[in-house]
Amino acid sequence: MSIPDDYVDLFDKRSFWHVATIGPSATPQCSPVWASFDGNHVRFGMTRAHQKFRNIEANPAIALSAIDPDNSYRYLEVRGTVTSIDDDGDLAFINSLSRKYLDQDPFPYHQPGDERVVVTVEPTSTTAQG
Amino acid sequence: MSIPDDYVDLFDKRSFWHVATIGPSATPQCSPVWASFDGNHVRFGMTRAHQKFRNIEANPAIALSAIDPDNSYRYLEVRGTVTSIDDDGDLAFINSLSRKYLDQDPFPYHQPGDERVVVTVEPTSTTAQG
Repeated sequence: MSIPDDYVDLFDKRSFWHVATIGPSATPQCSPVWASFDGNHVRFGMTRAHQKFRNIEANPAIALSAIDPDNSYRYLEVRGTVTSIDDDGDLAFINSLSRKYLDQDPFPYHQPGDERVVVTVEPTSTTAQG
Repeated sequence: MSIPDDYVDLFDKRSFWHVATIGPSATPQCSPVWASFDGNHVRFGMTRAHQKFRNIEANPAIALSAIDPDNSYRYLEVRGTVTSIDDDGDLAFINSLSRKYLDQDPFPYHQPGDERVVVTVEPTSTTAQG
């Protein structure tokens, strides 16, 4: 399955996605991320130091939701499975998100030592409203 | 524990909170809600028809995150436990949120038959940034 055509625009906008993962002791975690969609998969970035990195390494079940920045009562939730976690060694991915969200390339907040990864999510279901 | 003093303002603003719950088959769900904070507990509303209502009835572990509407790089995550789910029979709670978020009282989108509840969350940990 994929994202409903009439909600794909949420990935073209500067929508902040909140990503829900399941942590140790089976409790949920929720935090904002930048994300993109290539027509098949949702991708977002983070560093290996994040709790959510450890969560998805242990449990690939995931959900993301975002509100349309142009209409607060329109939103999309994507539930799915993390299918890969790849090194963003050359920062190509975070730089592409930085262009979209900040109009800046390279990403200005990268710190030496940050081990950035690209998380790929296969959508399994969606909920949309508005 | 409670919310850090210097992040309580996120509950005074029209911040959209994304609430993560755990659903059937132990997969996460994430969707936006309005919320408030009374100094001790986070509260948010929904109807009994929502999937997240069924989720928290079965599993009270929860997390909410929101971005500061005035600073997209400042956010708060609250993890906690649902300690009660009460009927919002007179709509007092949803009407109070409607005043905050829409400057409208009563809440204009209530539909006859909607069984509204107030969910009370005891914070157990927070993560803040920005």
